[in-house]
Amino acid sequence: MANGFASISNGVPDEESITAPFLRLRRSTSNTTSQIAIVGSNPCPVESLDYDYLAAFLIFAAANLGLTLFACLITTLIAPEAAGSGIPEVKAYLNGVDAPAIFSFRTLIVGSIAAVSSSLNVGKAGPMVHTGACIAALACQGGSDKYKLTWRWFRFFNNDRDRRDLVTCGSAAGIAAAFRAPVGVALEEPENSMWRSALLWRAFFSTAIVAILLRGLTDLCLSGKCGLFGTGGLIMYDVTSVNISYHLKDVPPVLLLGVIGGIAGSVYNCLLGKVLRLYNLINEKGTAYKILLACLVSIVTSCLLFGLPWFATCQPCPVDASEPCPTIGRSGNYKKFQCSPDHYNELASLFFNTNDDAIKNLFSKGTDTEFHPTSVLIFFITCFFLSIFSYGIVAPVGLFIPVIVTGASYGRLVGLLIGSNSNLNHGLFAVLGAASLLGGSMRMTVSLCVILLELTNNLLLLPLIMLVLLVSKTVADAFNGNIYDQIMSLKGFPYLETHAEPYMRQLTVSDVVSGPLRVFNGIELVANIVHVLRTTGHNGFPVVNEPPHSEAPILYGLILRSHLITLLKKKAFLLTPTPTDADAIKHFSASDFAKQGLGTAEEIEDIELTEDEMEMYIDLHHFTNASPYTVVETMSLAKALTLFRGVGLRHLLVVPKTSERLPVVGILTRHDFMPEHILGLHPMLAKSKWKRLRFKFPLWNKIF
Amino acid sequence: MANGFASISNGVPDEESITAPFLRLRRSTSNTTSQIAIVGSNPCPVESLDYDYLAAFLIFAAANLGLTLFACLITTLIAPEAAGSGIPEVKAYLNGVDAPAIFSFRTLIVGSIAAVSSSLNVGKAGPMVHTGACIAALACQGGSDKYKLTWRWFRFFNNDRDRRDLVTCGSAAGIAAAFRAPVGVALEEPENSMWRSALLWRAFFSTAIVAILLRGLTDLCLSGKCGLFGTGGLIMYDVTSVNISYHLKDVPPVLLLGVIGGIAGSVYNCLLGKVLRLYNLINEKGTAYKILLACLVSIVTSCLLFGLPWFATCQPCPVDASEPCPTIGRSGNYKKFQCSPDHYNELASLFFNTNDDAIKNLFSKGTDTEFHPTSVLIFFITCFFLSIFSYGIVAPVGLFIPVIVTGASYGRLVGLLIGSNSNLNHGLFAVLGAASLLGGSMRMTVSLCVILLELTNNLLLLPLIMLVLLVSKTVADAFNGNIYDQIMSLKGFPYLETHAEPYMRQLTVSDVVSGPLRVFNGIELVANIVHVLRTTGHNGFPVVNEPPHSEAPILYGLILRSHLITLLKKKAFLLTPTPTDADAIKHFSASDFAKQGLGTAEEIEDIELTEDEMEMYIDLHHFTNASPYTVVETMSLAKALTLFRGVGLRHLLVVPKTSERLPVVGILTRHDFMPEHILGLHPMLAKSKWKRLRFKFPLWNKIF
Repeated sequence: MANGFASISNGVPDEESITAPFLRLRRSTSNTTSQIAIVGSNPCPVESLDYDYLAAFLIFAAANLGLTLFACLITTLIAPEAAGSGIPEVKAYLNGVDAPAIFSFRTLIVGSIAAVSSSLNVGKAGPMVHTGACIAALACQGGSDKYKLTWRWFRFFNNDRDRRDLVTCGSAAGIAAAFRAPVGVALEEPENSMWRSALLWRAFFSTAIVAILLRGLTDLCLSGKCGLFGTGGLIMYDVTSVNISYHLKDVPPVLLLGVIGGIAGSVYNCLLGKVLRLYNLINEKGTAYKILLACLVSIVTSCLLFGLPWFATCQPCPVDASEPCPTIGRSGNYKKFQCSPDHYNELASLFFNTNDDAIKNLFSKGTDTEFHPTSVLIFFITCFFLSIFSYGIVAPVGLFIPVIVTGASYGRLVGLLIGSNSNLNHGLFAVLGAASLLGGSMRMTVSLCVILLELTNNLLLLPLIMLVLLVSKTVADAFNGNIYDQIMSLKGFPYLETHAEPYMRQLTVSDVVSGPLRVFNGIELVANIVHVLRTTGHNGFPVVNEPPHSEAPILYGLILRSHLITLLKKKAFLLTPTPTDADAIKHFSASDFAKQGLGTAEEIEDIELTEDEMEMYIDLHHFTNASPYTVVETMSLAKALTLFRGVGLRHLLVVPKTSERLPVVGILTRHDFMPEHILGLHPMLAKSKWKRLRFKFPLWNKIF
Repeated sequence: MANGFASISNGVPDEESITAPFLRLRRSTSNTTSQIAIVGSNPCPVESLDYDYLAAFLIFAAANLGLTLFACLITTLIAPEAAGSGIPEVKAYLNGVDAPAIFSFRTLIVGSIAAVSSSLNVGKAGPMVHTGACIAALACQGGSDKYKLTWRWFRFFNNDRDRRDLVTCGSAAGIAAAFRAPVGVALEEPENSMWRSALLWRAFFSTAIVAILLRGLTDLCLSGKCGLFGTGGLIMYDVTSVNISYHLKDVPPVLLLGVIGGIAGSVYNCLLGKVLRLYNLINEKGTAYKILLACLVSIVTSCLLFGLPWFATCQPCPVDASEPCPTIGRSGNYKKFQCSPDHYNELASLFFNTNDDAIKNLFSKGTDTEFHPTSVLIFFITCFFLSIFSYGIVAPVGLFIPVIVTGASYGRLVGLLIGSNSNLNHGLFAVLGAASLLGGSMRMTVSLCVILLELTNNLLLLPLIMLVLLVSKTVADAFNGNIYDQIMSLKGFPYLETHAEPYMRQLTVSDVVSGPLRVFNGIELVANIVHVLRTTGHNGFPVVNEPPHSEAPILYGLILRSHLITLLKKKAFLLTPTPTDADAIKHFSASDFAKQGLGTAEEIEDIELTEDEMEMYIDLHHFTNASPYTVVETMSLAKALTLFRGVGLRHLLVVPKTSERLPVVGILTRHDFMPEHILGLHPMLAKSKWKRLRFKFPLWNKIF
């Protein structure tokens, strides 16, 4: 305490340390806390802050709070959909969930601004993915109608399929940009229910463009003109210099790392779920509560970051340090904080740093003696809980980087504890620790592997990274699902799993078809259509040809709500119920039936019809999808789900087994396949033996 | 000429050079020509061969011929299915084509032995993939019944789905082992029509095990105890040491490289197709012709390899060479061949080398002055044509390594021609050239990118590699399809494309349903079943409940030929056509209906039935798949194909639109979706505008 808070004020600042912070404030894309402290303090008279910890802390906390408030406010007030990681939204959309506004222009603007200005222990990868997806979605809408930013040419992509493809490519480009990791991104994408091999090629195209652009821009920025952008080059945490030699005896520690990482990852997911549930309760109470919560998190973060380094004892600087020691006014290791000259505070080196630099510190090899187990333990625990509590606030925040930081500190800790019993140096333990926690939390395999490879540029480490990922994913899968699935289910997105739940094999589709079925005649009365559209929210309706237009009732096809609204709007009505010829379709252009952008879609309430018009008819035949996919009512539900996911459907018609009845008995939508819906209809299945094996902790769930 | 063939005989061989060749003959896994020359000549009296080029050539050619003959003979006589790359077989199988014997035990044995002993310009990656797939297929059959190698426990995997999954993992493991490239293998696998995300995880598991094992084994072999296995470590063509700096002005040469690579790749594919067609004509004439063809290819190869280096002038050894120069008796560069002391023959350095070492030479950076454009041009042309003419012989041969060698020499040539106009060194040009030819020929993107990354271990090169792959694939796609698709269509595998041909949108399923439909009653007369099974080759039959067992004819489900044969074999017959209860199924065990291994499947001809038995009945209900996928006859063919591929079907039932007729009007199988079948039924579609855009060269096709 006596040796003072010299790191901020000692010494005469040279020109670079005065100008640099401003540059950083404007251009930095990292969620940094240390920089903000510098920014807040440097402009003050240099000597006055000597030993004035309280003022330093207040400025630090105020800067943090201000930025968090800014991020939170614009998110809450302008685009609440931009909150969170964005990856669950993209994943759900690619799975087939078209939630409103998740890819709007507002979301894009807020996401890209706010993601880079909040100052908590959060990442930027998620918001980058979301931003990429937003740009793609807007491009295929042909810009934003609402804000008069339109490009006619792009309207050709204005349909569901191209939109989905473009969002895939956009999100791949986003993650490629976030990690500077151009390959291995779109790989875990078969989650996407419309995956086609052509899409892989297109996603590759996007990420290749990202890679080439990134390479070009870093080339331009080599001289340091672009803030923190140019530093690090294409490989963010280069560990090439580490000579890797490991042998059989190094395998058990690595296995241990994987097992603990898997358990830690599943605990992380579980805690995050509980915290999000709690935050949801708070956030529901209103905007003020949301803001208050964010402020609280910001203040607690500031307190922890500023307070915890005091617990670390000052370390003497190593004699042969390659970097200046101690340092002030720049990011890097050997932070001075309160220590006397020639000493550094190891915890400050970790806390008062960008996340990226903290990861670099932890990954680097020459630092085996720089950190002590207690410091790393404190850092690990702080990161673990801070990242969990920071995620739920109403701002665009990512999970990837916090998990890497936490995992790296955990790996470093294990490395320190194992000490000389292993040949591996502590930097490698940190890399493997990051891999294990990522594996345990995100549960991706190939893409994580490739991303880690691209982040660290050390191919020789690959077998160990694969081993750790294998073990940690296996262990964590025994406890709960992956983190994005949990967030999606909390957000209420009806995400369809790739494989059917075991109890679905015990059911037929007729067991889950519910609700009254609304059917249209091939030539239908306008009043009927209006009535059905007003009283139901269904998006698809079967069209049936009934006598006298056919001998017996025959299923003709499926018509979409949006197409019916277009027909009503254009008033293409008939006075008598007589079939029209194919010329009827000439009154319409393709763009009439194109997918409507957000906010521009017509509602049935907007359409005014006279009494006379209500008594007229519409020939639906030319506007109906005459090749809908169908299943027989006795079809196994699991097989119907395979069809639904495999082909990427929104509506699946159920036809009767026998021909006496109406030729269609129901429509299956995504919601009918949700476990909640099915278990609600058949509660006894919840207790059946037909479910996935997983460890349960009833006591744990009772407490929280 | 006067300075003699000293490279083989000069100097007294030390102990290593005497023992090493034998070691190599037994253990080498590379398809080498230089080694064989050494093996053949070294045991001879050292001085007698001085300047005796004829004897040297004869020994060289004889050794090559002997090994080729060996590979050819065992392939032809024991397992003709092992011939070729094996990748088309695996790709077709994963697409759903279950060709007989492609994964038999014989194929495995022959594939793994013969692939490593043939001595032509061929690769080993393809056979390795095939070997991996064979092991997987055999494992899930529970071993080979025929050779009495059975493991009971594995029988649980004895079904189509697990077999397909295991084959995916096996082939991934095979390619991972061939390239020591554990990730990025299973990535282009969405070709597999049964792709599920769980499969990605399993494939990753397999390749991780391969990576860990490889790492362990190279560790054990570091001291050189394992022949050529240990050399090179995990990264086969390490170019890490190359400092990469490239700027905007290097992009045009790279684009040029991509364009030419794309054209060369499509020409390569086209020529390979023509040569294979020619070889097929020759091979059909009998075993003797096959062997003769292989011998001819081997002799021509020997002549070229031995003859072409004479055209190169001898170069003086560089003063600052890091390696000994000139060298004899080992693989590497600076081969002496006929040159005088202190000189080397640059073409011999490329030709008298393993493919791997030739690639290493071409990729390495310090060799910008080592090769001259004419030599590299000669090498490029020779490789290009030799690899095309070597592929078609009846032995397990791969395409990957030859294409890399050819591409590397082409890239090097471009580098030499561009010379000082680019900052890139010639080694990098070679890497990019290999990428461009691979992209132009194989048309893979992400997996090639990751494999090249893993082979060369230089992440900084990634943006350029991606650029080259983009350009070359785009250019090549304008001319023809990828090489494996061409080989598959030559082999007659009904490979289903992921996306429908445009003209399929103009057809309904009823337009392509063909052939008389065979339908069984729910309770069917044994004689009927036997008759139908004997007179048709269909593998699936609809089962229809007809009066009096139901009020109207109702489609009950689909029964497989193999299950009918099991029922006939077990003689579970009824005296009268009365429905049985569910107990009927208790007479059977699950293994009765398991997928039969190759050669153990029962044929209908093997079943003996008495006259009385023929008059009895079988209740098929309990053995029928009661949830078959169905489409209505008016369904668009393109949509039916989406369903067929998306869900991974073998049979798709077509049901009528109206209910007056039989409740099933046909069965669609894979063959009904083949363009040849459809265009045969509707020849006018071939000329329609509804087809893929591609450049055509009618004159070219007329000449060949």
